[in-house]
Amino acid sequence: MAFTTSMTRINYVAASKMMAAAVARADEMNVPQCIAIMDPSGGLVCFGRTDGAADLASGPAYAKARVAAERQHASGALPVEFEVGVAFATGGQYTNLPGGLPIVLDGVHVGGIGVSGGSGDDDLDVARAGLAAIGAD
Amino acid sequence: MAFTTSMTRINYVAASKMMAAAVARADEMNVPQCIAIMDPSGGLVCFGRTDGAADLASGPAYAKARVAAERQHASGALPVEFEVGVAFATGGQYTNLPGGLPIVLDGVHVGGIGVSGGSGDDDLDVARAGLAAIGAD
Amino acid sequence: MAFTTSMTRINYVAASKMMAAAVARADEMNVPQCIAIMDPSGGLVCFGRTDGAADLASGPAYAKARVAAERQHASGALPVEFEVGVAFATGGQYTNLPGGLPIVLDGVHVGGIGVSGGSGDDDLDVARAGLAAIGAD
Amino acid sequence: MAFTTSMTRINYVAASKMMAAAVARADEMNVPQCIAIMDPSGGLVCFGRTDGAADLASGPAYAKARVAAERQHASGALPVEFEVGVAFATGGQYTNLPGGLPIVLDGVHVGGIGVSGGSGDDDLDVARAGLAAIGAD
Repeated sequence: MAFTTSMTRINYVAASKMMAAAVARADEMNVPQCIAIMDPSGGLVCFGRTDGAADLASGPAYAKARVAAERQHASGALPVEFEVGVAFATGGQYTNLPGGLPIVLDGVHVGGIGVSGGSGDDDLDVARAGLAAIGAD
Repeated sequence: MAFTTSMTRINYVAASKMMAAAVARADEMNVPQCIAIMDPSGGLVCFGRTDGAADLASGPAYAKARVAAERQHASGALPVEFEVGVAFATGGQYTNLPGGLPIVLDGVHVGGIGVSGGSGDDDLDVARAGLAAIGAD
Repeated sequence: MAFTTSMTRINYVAASKMMAAAVARADEMNVPQCIAIMDPSGGLVCFGRTDGAADLASGPAYAKARVAAERQHASGALPVEFEVGVAFATGGQYTNLPGGLPIVLDGVHVGGIGVSGGSGDDDLDVARAGLAAIGAD
Repeated sequence: MAFTTSMTRINYVAASKMMAAAVARADEMNVPQCIAIMDPSGGLVCFGRTDGAADLASGPAYAKARVAAERQHASGALPVEFEVGVAFATGGQYTNLPGGLPIVLDGVHVGGIGVSGGSGDDDLDVARAGLAAIGAD
């Protein structure tokens, strides 16, 4: 009988590659951004706030990354009638804002990235640039 | 390669002039108010609660000032569908209540003022009196 | 039978006079400071952070003011064996750091002032300058 | 009369160079670490948690960086009699743990770095590697 489970998570090398690409894309778009990358347990692996981005955008970046990392789907997918209840019950961490995407490598869920600072579309654009840098879906 | 960025922020002299004018306007209108002035990082520079104003109005004053200071626009500009999500993900700090205005001197964003205690129009009236005292837009 | 109690508290005019004098003293000493003035209920009446003072000093300024305002004595007077227990049980608000002084006018306790940013002696010097400005003990 | 103050802060390019060097040093020492870099207002610019580092080490990394960034000196310099009082009054943010160093470029204070996960000496070693990467003192 097996008493343990093994987990596959993104490592620092991959997260820092994603971060560099996401920051480069935000700079190219000229949209200051906060970017958070988490492992599947919702632990922060790395964070970046580009020049001019508000510290106030860090909270949404964390929350978006957490949903994508722990729930394994893009943030913003909650049926609207659950949005407030879930937000309250998680201290605001289970956000329904768009801008968080799961990190999937070879079909395995290994973490999440969350971006905040621009429009929902800007945020997703930057998150996708991060995923592309490591060949994640 | 440049390793630093420079930032311009409102100083205490200017903030206290703004505060005195905002308090005078609130007294003139006979509307007790909480008034907060922040630097562009969202650090509180000064705060005033006029006689009769509820302590309960201080939180909204801080949040309005923070949005105006960090996001560099008036509070109350969020599309309504993001209001609750953004509030939760920022611990209530990114408010969508009106009454926060950015402080712009000679075209440079140097902070924000937030007022709470009256109607939205009262709050804006007091915030504008603060801005006028230093010739800010 | 009386069903009400009346309270005497510092008003905004007096608090702003105290603030101006405390700030002037901090500037004269060249010690950046956070200064908080509260009414006897522990409600903030005004706050000032002079140029160069760390936002990190605001928490101790609030806590010192609260002890002086609500407990009606200088902060720093707790027997050391109670310091940690009281701090925990008040969420850190009942501080035992020096730098908070009660505001007493004609023998009546009307509030408290707390200062943080310098040494304990610097902080008390600035707090006393505030008291002197309104002829408080 | 001047109404503004100007501030110089570390930019993202410099912070990410520091992070890469600090992470490389932690890997070389084989000590998993959490590393935080902040601007002088205590806003997080970037964060990294190397493979195997506990999420539980992130709080001390933030607090060490905050002291160094906002107070402009190494963390761990508080006289021991103030350690607990200051920690409580700042919600644990003004830590007295060693491992936080100010970032000074050409004599100008531009931020702070905090490292947590190893011994105090390990943490300082990694922080110094970060400083060296941009020629900071």
